[in-house]
Amino acid sequence: MEQKPYVIGLDLGGTNSEFGIVDKNANIIASTRVKTAGHGDINQYVDDCVAALRPIIEQVGGIEKIHAMGIGAPNGNYYSGSIEFAPNLPWKGKIPLAQMFHERLGIPVRLTNDANAAAIGEMQYGAAKGMQNFIMITLGTGVGSGIVVNGQLVYGCDGFAGELGHVIVERDGRQCGCGRKGCLETYCSATGVARTAREIIEKTDKPTLLREIPLDKIESKDVAIAAGKGDEVAKQIFEETGRILGEACANFTAFSSPEAYIFFGGLAKAGDLIMNPIKKAYDEHVLRIFKDKAKFLVSELDGAGAAVLGASALGWEVK
Amino acid sequence: MEQKPYVIGLDLGGTNSEFGIVDKNANIIASTRVKTAGHGDINQYVDDCVAALRPIIEQVGGIEKIHAMGIGAPNGNYYSGSIEFAPNLPWKGKIPLAQMFHERLGIPVRLTNDANAAAIGEMQYGAAKGMQNFIMITLGTGVGSGIVVNGQLVYGCDGFAGELGHVIVERDGRQCGCGRKGCLETYCSATGVARTAREIIEKTDKPTLLREIPLDKIESKDVAIAAGKGDEVAKQIFEETGRILGEACANFTAFSSPEAYIFFGGLAKAGDLIMNPIKKAYDEHVLRIFKDKAKFLVSELDGAGAAVLGASALGWEVK
Repeated sequence: MEQKPYVIGLDLGGTNSEFGIVDKNANIIASTRVKTAGHGDINQYVDDCVAALRPIIEQVGGIEKIHAMGIGAPNGNYYSGSIEFAPNLPWKGKIPLAQMFHERLGIPVRLTNDANAAAIGEMQYGAAKGMQNFIMITLGTGVGSGIVVNGQLVYGCDGFAGELGHVIVERDGRQCGCGRKGCLETYCSATGVARTAREIIEKTDKPTLLREIPLDKIESKDVAIAAGKGDEVAKQIFEETGRILGEACANFTAFSSPEAYIFFGGLAKAGDLIMNPIKKAYDEHVLRIFKDKAKFLVSELDGAGAAVLGASALGWEVK
Repeated sequence: MEQKPYVIGLDLGGTNSEFGIVDKNANIIASTRVKTAGHGDINQYVDDCVAALRPIIEQVGGIEKIHAMGIGAPNGNYYSGSIEFAPNLPWKGKIPLAQMFHERLGIPVRLTNDANAAAIGEMQYGAAKGMQNFIMITLGTGVGSGIVVNGQLVYGCDGFAGELGHVIVERDGRQCGCGRKGCLETYCSATGVARTAREIIEKTDKPTLLREIPLDKIESKDVAIAAGKGDEVAKQIFEETGRILGEACANFTAFSSPEAYIFFGGLAKAGDLIMNPIKKAYDEHVLRIFKDKAKFLVSELDGAGAAVLGASALGWEVK
């Protein structure tokens, strides 16, 4: 039987849900988008997604041309096809999303962690080509991770492995959306950087471009812009963020000794401003036997596209 | 060609080196022991080991009956067959131990981390039978670990993965033999427990059986004996140790979400005294999606025997 020529990839983020129809050569043939934020009713959300998909499915020749669908979503469970207790999504509890799309579209649907999907994309098309051991870290609204060991995604006993954003890096530290305190993502996500910015600006009298923005409106990209202009306070914010991330990576290396860390997402686009402090803290904290081994890379794939490609690759796993 | 009936297993510890000749049914047919501590000259050490092995090799019918040798050693590198920068062994730098035994015995020799060897033993004969994802934690002079993901040992890009004893759990904490500060093993190894005992006894006026022992002579087994008699200070020492270990495990779960943690070594023999505080701290700190999933088990295999069996199992991997 001839395999159908396309898969659908869905990169489900806290703000937007990005869809792509992808061919076997990793070309995104058609794409569409639905807002995730504000879509509190999960049935309405899936209906709206399917309505947005219909025209692009027709554009490639109809549903009979679609082999399967792959979804990358926060707290996505590969084994069950559900999203479970995702702190940054509008839906509470367990959401059997793969099943819900399957019922409406009539095609097989696979689902995984959004960061795992990004790792799969990076392994197939990006900076991790040919690597057997690497850790993908996604720096977005939250901090996610996809861990590859011996060439395989680490799903663990329950499908949820690779939640490095919720490693506690500071005992009794910042309150996290997960209900605990001191998680990596409270410091190193885009929102964590904004929090650090507010803390540092309030504590210092130093002049900074960031004072031109109301304190509660500062975003991580403002910090990146100011740091790019040489603003000392903005650079200090990135140094603090990079230090925490680099120290955390030194601990992760004791676990799986990856060939590379690959950073993905808005914050990673700050380049050396964030990567240099990460590498410096890592070098200072990593166990001697691991020194000078891991590479620190920025994703080679374009933001939304990479995650959509990664999610779509899950679709090709359907036999 | 008929496969030879025995393998040699070597469990190389900071104090002793335990050898066993093992058959395919995991019976230790013959065994011997050489002191590791004080053996500063590596050539002399290997010569002494081989001299100790000769009579037991003859006992099973000579070297032609031995298929291969497997070694479990601290900082052992599976890929290179070397011990590299092991802080708790008498030898500095890189020691090509597998090659050295191979040259003297004329049989293939494989080497891995001592804790990885214990994990292999546990997977084949013990509490981890049939598990695809688990973490073995060895509580001895140091703290070691063997991590199994998707049924495979995690060796990482360089052969050194799984050094969870050197995850930093306390920034600027206790000085570690590795040169850094605050490593898990400075708190949760046998020596870490003795250190905690000294700190707590000096800080408190409470009556405790442990005051009958000179402060600098207290060992973790003294703490276990006192705690077993209901001594409140001794129980507090285990609670503090278990808390740190349980919090660390909560972070490890965010990495690989294991089905079980299996504890091995002298400290694990304290049973509920240490396991209950571990489980309590773990439950309090683990991310919600992982709650009530991982089992906390004590090794089902006998101390030295398990590590020798694990090391020997490496020998059977030689084709």
